[in-house]
Amino acid sequence: MVDVVVVGTVALDDVKTPFGEVKNALGGSATFASLACSLFSKVGLVAVIGNDFPEKHIDFLASKKIDLKGLQRDKARKSFHWSGEYGLDLNVAKTLRTDLNALETFSPKLPEEYRKADFLFLGNLDPEIQLNVLAQMKKRPKMVIADTMNLWIERKREKVLQVVKEVDIALMNDAEARQLFRTPSIVRAGREILSLDSKVAIIKKGEHGCVMFTDKKHFACPGYPLEKVIDPTGSGDSFGGALIGYLARTRDFTEKNMRKGIVYASSVASFNAEDFSVKRLSSLSMKDVETRFEEFRGFVKF
Amino acid sequence: MVDVVVVGTVALDDVKTPFGEVKNALGGSATFASLACSLFSKVGLVAVIGNDFPEKHIDFLASKKIDLKGLQRDKARKSFHWSGEYGLDLNVAKTLRTDLNALETFSPKLPEEYRKADFLFLGNLDPEIQLNVLAQMKKRPKMVIADTMNLWIERKREKVLQVVKEVDIALMNDAEARQLFRTPSIVRAGREILSLDSKVAIIKKGEHGCVMFTDKKHFACPGYPLEKVIDPTGSGDSFGGALIGYLARTRDFTEKNMRKGIVYASSVASFNAEDFSVKRLSSLSMKDVETRFEEFRGFVKF
Repeated sequence: MVDVVVVGTVALDDVKTPFGEVKNALGGSATFASLACSLFSKVGLVAVIGNDFPEKHIDFLASKKIDLKGLQRDKARKSFHWSGEYGLDLNVAKTLRTDLNALETFSPKLPEEYRKADFLFLGNLDPEIQLNVLAQMKKRPKMVIADTMNLWIERKREKVLQVVKEVDIALMNDAEARQLFRTPSIVRAGREILSLDSKVAIIKKGEHGCVMFTDKKHFACPGYPLEKVIDPTGSGDSFGGALIGYLARTRDFTEKNMRKGIVYASSVASFNAEDFSVKRLSSLSMKDVETRFEEFRGFVKF
Repeated sequence: MVDVVVVGTVALDDVKTPFGEVKNALGGSATFASLACSLFSKVGLVAVIGNDFPEKHIDFLASKKIDLKGLQRDKARKSFHWSGEYGLDLNVAKTLRTDLNALETFSPKLPEEYRKADFLFLGNLDPEIQLNVLAQMKKRPKMVIADTMNLWIERKREKVLQVVKEVDIALMNDAEARQLFRTPSIVRAGREILSLDSKVAIIKKGEHGCVMFTDKKHFACPGYPLEKVIDPTGSGDSFGGALIGYLARTRDFTEKNMRKGIVYASSVASFNAEDFSVKRLSSLSMKDVETRFEEFRGFVKF
């Protein structure tokens, strides 16, 4: 029985940064999120792969105790493929090419046992699919977190807003928050998210960390001071996966524990940026994560 | 006897933001810095004004108990005039016009009693003038903080680096730090500042707060979550002025107290952005500042 269901993409990525490049590397929102989640909880992954997907990647995910009953194969199409590039400012990815392939006709069908899970992470994916997955749950999960991205805000803004309305925690980065609510102020955007019914808004700001808005509280978590960011791809997804994994393990949704979860998530996300693809996550231990968690305490103490 | 000497510009500003505009408003790095500093300590201002400078602005500065013996008048020239505009993203000012006027030939001559001050703030100004002022001090002040800006990094990079080398705390914003050290990483830039001999590097990041680098420590202070930023002009200068004012009042340069100073400075800087020109600073009380200081504690607690 899985504690957390993670829905999103499993992709083959071409990524180029000032520090090197990889081709056909394992990527995708569900990949990073479920790997990060697996540090804390038993996770099941829901996504689609195509006919060109290397078996070794599947073996790798399985070796991390990620349940793969929800991983669908599309034998008629190739895998979702993303090509991106980062300049010297590693905060912003430039998408060179997106080949949806198998994702184009993806209609996830949740395995029966997943439908009773208490925790659901709707990773970056078409908002209509996110809503469809939520509708397949037999009972409302105790906690649903949803992420999104600029592509869906441009194409399906109303649906993205509906997802924000339906979930407990709306997660997005600062540029997406500004775009979704048409405001330069992320404080304003955070308030708008809350007024839409999400109990919690978390806005990720890359190297600047993240902020959480709840009813009357504000929490700011700094970015981990990485001297060398090698590849930030998937750090936002890792953040979301680690957060829901931590909440599933602790089952405590108080403001205080949410804040701890955010710092754990920031720790995992910062490790992810230290190498290409899933390389750093693949060798990451809870001891590493705990050490960095304690470092965060030192960064903000005054 | 003044505790802190603040050197910089006193300007007449035309500023336009999405929320309105002002013309010939009181501005300049020394104006904002000395006003912020005056909340904490006895401050003397060193700057030049021209023949068009309104007497009411001088009266206003004097009413704030700012010592004006170092305020020089250039009867042959107009005052330094800056015109800038902010778009919806209020993080970045677009300079429309800079008329140096009196600043062009400004050669500050420190009043005798200023030369023995223990605290010196070298506000944003030509780095050669900053070095000249430092050389006029009878004894090395206990604490020297220097700020800078992109214009001087472009025109006189070597001199800016020399200033960084000479002072105790090098203060700049993230874009300037990246530009000065030719790196996309502000962590790298912070380390470079320390390797140049500054004991402390503080990098301001606008709405994202600021970070301080010391030998082996890292401190991150979040930005205050202002829902409406009206005019950020002078917030960086207010930050610097408040910081040196706080350090002069407490005379405690431990890491712990520096961190407190940074939070006080962040509090003052955030108030400054709530209105045009010096409007918000002119009515700001220490009680306001203390209240916001305590709010910052709540923002980072986990």
